[in-house]
Amino acid sequence: MRYKRSERIVFMTQYLINNPNKLVPLTFFVTKFKQAKSSISEDVQIIKDTLIEEGLGTIETVAGASGGVRYRPEMQKAEAEAVIEELIHLLQEKERLLPGGYLFLSDLVGNPPLLKQVGKLIATIYMHEDLDAVVTIATKGISLANAVASVLNLPVVVIRKDNKVTEGSTVSINYVSGSTRKIETMVLSKRTLKEHSKVLIVDDFMRAGGSINGVINLMNEFKAEVKGVSVLVESKEVKQRLIEDYTSLVRLSDVDEYNQAFKVEAGNSLSKFNN
Amino acid sequence: MRYKRSERIVFMTQYLINNPNKLVPLTFFVTKFKQAKSSISEDVQIIKDTLIEEGLGTIETVAGASGGVRYRPEMQKAEAEAVIEELIHLLQEKERLLPGGYLFLSDLVGNPPLLKQVGKLIATIYMHEDLDAVVTIATKGISLANAVASVLNLPVVVIRKDNKVTEGSTVSINYVSGSTRKIETMVLSKRTLKEHSKVLIVDDFMRAGGSINGVINLMNEFKAEVKGVSVLVESKEVKQRLIEDYTSLVRLSDVDEYNQAFKVEAGNSLSKFNN
Repeated sequence: MRYKRSERIVFMTQYLINNPNKLVPLTFFVTKFKQAKSSISEDVQIIKDTLIEEGLGTIETVAGASGGVRYRPEMQKAEAEAVIEELIHLLQEKERLLPGGYLFLSDLVGNPPLLKQVGKLIATIYMHEDLDAVVTIATKGISLANAVASVLNLPVVVIRKDNKVTEGSTVSINYVSGSTRKIETMVLSKRTLKEHSKVLIVDDFMRAGGSINGVINLMNEFKAEVKGVSVLVESKEVKQRLIEDYTSLVRLSDVDEYNQAFKVEAGNSLSKFNN
Repeated sequence: MRYKRSERIVFMTQYLINNPNKLVPLTFFVTKFKQAKSSISEDVQIIKDTLIEEGLGTIETVAGASGGVRYRPEMQKAEAEAVIEELIHLLQEKERLLPGGYLFLSDLVGNPPLLKQVGKLIATIYMHEDLDAVVTIATKGISLANAVASVLNLPVVVIRKDNKVTEGSTVSINYVSGSTRKIETMVLSKRTLKEHSKVLIVDDFMRAGGSINGVINLMNEFKAEVKGVSVLVESKEVKQRLIEDYTSLVRLSDVDEYNQAFKVEAGNSLSKFNN
């Protein structure tokens, strides 16, 4: 079969969109379409120009024998602002406030189109870091971590707060919850994370940072290097935070449980975007 | 700006790929590109023909004022067979067998490219069902449910085995685990699932079906209608199964813990694909 340019462009576009951050050798397309490399390069250029023009990211070209093209679905600042504005809008609903100053987030992390946007936003911040895995804590971090990892083309590693036979042999640590001051346990299956991995930690909610601090300690047990920490919501109601270097999408403050009032504003992640 | 056909095709392809199972009004593209509807329809036809030719699904056209186009990323039987073969290959590793006849699955549900394929496979089986949500059980079902739900363009609803303040008000049921015969609890936040929803239940592992049976009972509390049940791995080591109507990707049998031996074969889901 002989492919027309428009048909090649449909196939190549869907392939790159479905495989973000993956290096695709040009020979893959050359062989598939039985076309000269120069024509394939022209196709890629059309796709790249359109993606850039539309603010949908870019296509990187890696030269050499082991080279190829890689789709980088980087989000523009304006879109990141729109995503955060939507999050703020959704989070401002009064009924979200739960006892203890928590926010109800289960519906948000169960909304795939929203998660996809949030995942792309966080992934954009860490796209040029050298990473091996996205690490999160069960339960609500999992969907968010998947959304980030699928953009970064990385595996997801899930830390649990209970030990299960289905995890095989595990490493566990005890940590003190920053807000409740209770001692809790974290467990990670040995074979889900290689030693010396470079990781990005993602979670849905951070108050004092006790859980994230626990994750960092657990990462030390795996000799892993923490390259970043990103949370969907951070709560400002904390005197002393255990974690200093992190990005957050939105920030919760002025929680008044009695009057069911609170404030939600943009977190610091927008500062990571260029104009 | 005036768009060329190739540029329109790049944009429309990425949009449809990024929004599977979503009805997109043609006027969205007509307005964006300032083109006659007939040209846009021709663009759609080129994309549709290529997607069909390449076995990547199809584009449905819905006529009328509230109509538009919808990308249906249906998987072909040959690809489904390849996905299941890969799963069998991965699951056959001896070291996966855990005490009690469980299989270690955490690395598989933490592998986004594999999950994407598995999600597409399960979504293809249920794509033409009238569904409102994908329901799963924490922890390992979550990634799988997200993979299925993002293809079906549906929310994910996560049932937990512990009750947390972050869930708000909840409904819970007790159930008897099919294999251990222990009484366990399942909890679902009231506001994550509307009454009378039509749901697809997805989980990673099913033995006797006690957990899934618990989910079905919990769904009754929400007056929900269970339209399907799909699991990644089913274990055949069961005399009497509590669930009859389900699809599985692979089937585990002949577990011999002493010799670390077991058999993995294709489940019944391939029978749902046409040739």
